[in-house]
Amino acid sequence: MRNRFTSQLEALNDGIIEMGALVEEAFAEATEALLYFNKEQAQRNIDNDKDIDQKMKDIETLCLRLLLSQQPVARDLRLISASLKMVSDLERIGDQCANISEIVLTLAQKSTNPAPIPVIPIMSTNISRMISQGIDAFVRKDLPLAKRVCDMDNIIDNAFIEAKKTLVESIRSNSAEADNVIDSFMIAKYLERIGDHAVNVAKWVVFAETGSREV
Amino acid sequence: MRNRFTSQLEALNDGIIEMGALVEEAFAEATEALLYFNKEQAQRNIDNDKDIDQKMKDIETLCLRLLLSQQPVARDLRLISASLKMVSDLERIGDQCANISEIVLTLAQKSTNPAPIPVIPIMSTNISRMISQGIDAFVRKDLPLAKRVCDMDNIIDNAFIEAKKTLVESIRSNSAEADNVIDSFMIAKYLERIGDHAVNVAKWVVFAETGSREV
Repeated sequence: MRNRFTSQLEALNDGIIEMGALVEEAFAEATEALLYFNKEQAQRNIDNDKDIDQKMKDIETLCLRLLLSQQPVARDLRLISASLKMVSDLERIGDQCANISEIVLTLAQKSTNPAPIPVIPIMSTNISRMISQGIDAFVRKDLPLAKRVCDMDNIIDNAFIEAKKTLVESIRSNSAEADNVIDSFMIAKYLERIGDHAVNVAKWVVFAETGSREV
Repeated sequence: MRNRFTSQLEALNDGIIEMGALVEEAFAEATEALLYFNKEQAQRNIDNDKDIDQKMKDIETLCLRLLLSQQPVARDLRLISASLKMVSDLERIGDQCANISEIVLTLAQKSTNPAPIPVIPIMSTNISRMISQGIDAFVRKDLPLAKRVCDMDNIIDNAFIEAKKTLVESIRSNSAEADNVIDSFMIAKYLERIGDHAVNVAKWVVFAETGSREV
């Protein structure tokens, strides 16, 4: 019984690692599609989102089976319930990557470029790090790393405030561009939300390790 | 001990009812803002989304406390783990209502109307019913009602296919309208996703009652 439980916990760990890898890849695809205005990459990113959704469902099923059949306690119980929630945040990162790719396709259809936002590369680089470090923190049960990911949220929030300022000014200077500005604003907003979900992933690691939802 | 557990389970039930009411209200606000092109209502809907987010966090905390301190089994355990997941679906309905309201504000800024989609009222009426019946099914532990909600997804999916057809045709007949068509497409898409989340709520009710994720 105990051995079966241990192997199921390992399967859960592997599942989260695999889902994490899919989400990291989705983020890389979405930001590259955006940066190089690559329609094929954007379409691939949208198509691949279903794999992330399926992975979430598989992990949820495993978590529920573990909860119901094994009646885990203490640390194992925290780990399983944190995993059950964490996959929702990972899945939403996948969705928001697909949303960014949808904007890339929309812009491509209109044959127009989004209004440039200078902070986008800073946001993408940091968010990419937050996603991979959040997953690393889960795998290595690394509490200080999880806390560092949470602290990085300030960088993203400040960059988002900068992005908004830039966009408001570009509407003022050229109101004909309002449309492209709105597309750019949505991109910045999706990035900001992805940052929030990466922080949530790190917070679930903190919960799994400490039982506390405060970081 | 047992009494405290029972009262915490009641608090969980009340929390879900309250969150359900907030989400039903958000959906009514979003669809009214859209229908009557009401900026104030759209803004209120966006502002109120934070209450739904907070409610989700409160319920999550309660579920985790129940899991960790009470070590529930069987039906109670299914109910708590289903609630822990269900609140994510309810919260996403709130987010997507806010997304619809954001489009209403964007359109108001451009002083333009969205391209009309005849099936939107059918979608809204049915989705509103799915949300309220999904929550009712949870409260009354009503398995047949939960299953009926799942069956209603076909209506929404077919309406969404109709919406797409209408929009593609309106782009063909007037390509200058492409922009407004994209806004309308996004509205239809958000509605379709809200329908999916309402189905998920109903599926979590089925899981809580039966332990199965198949409907």
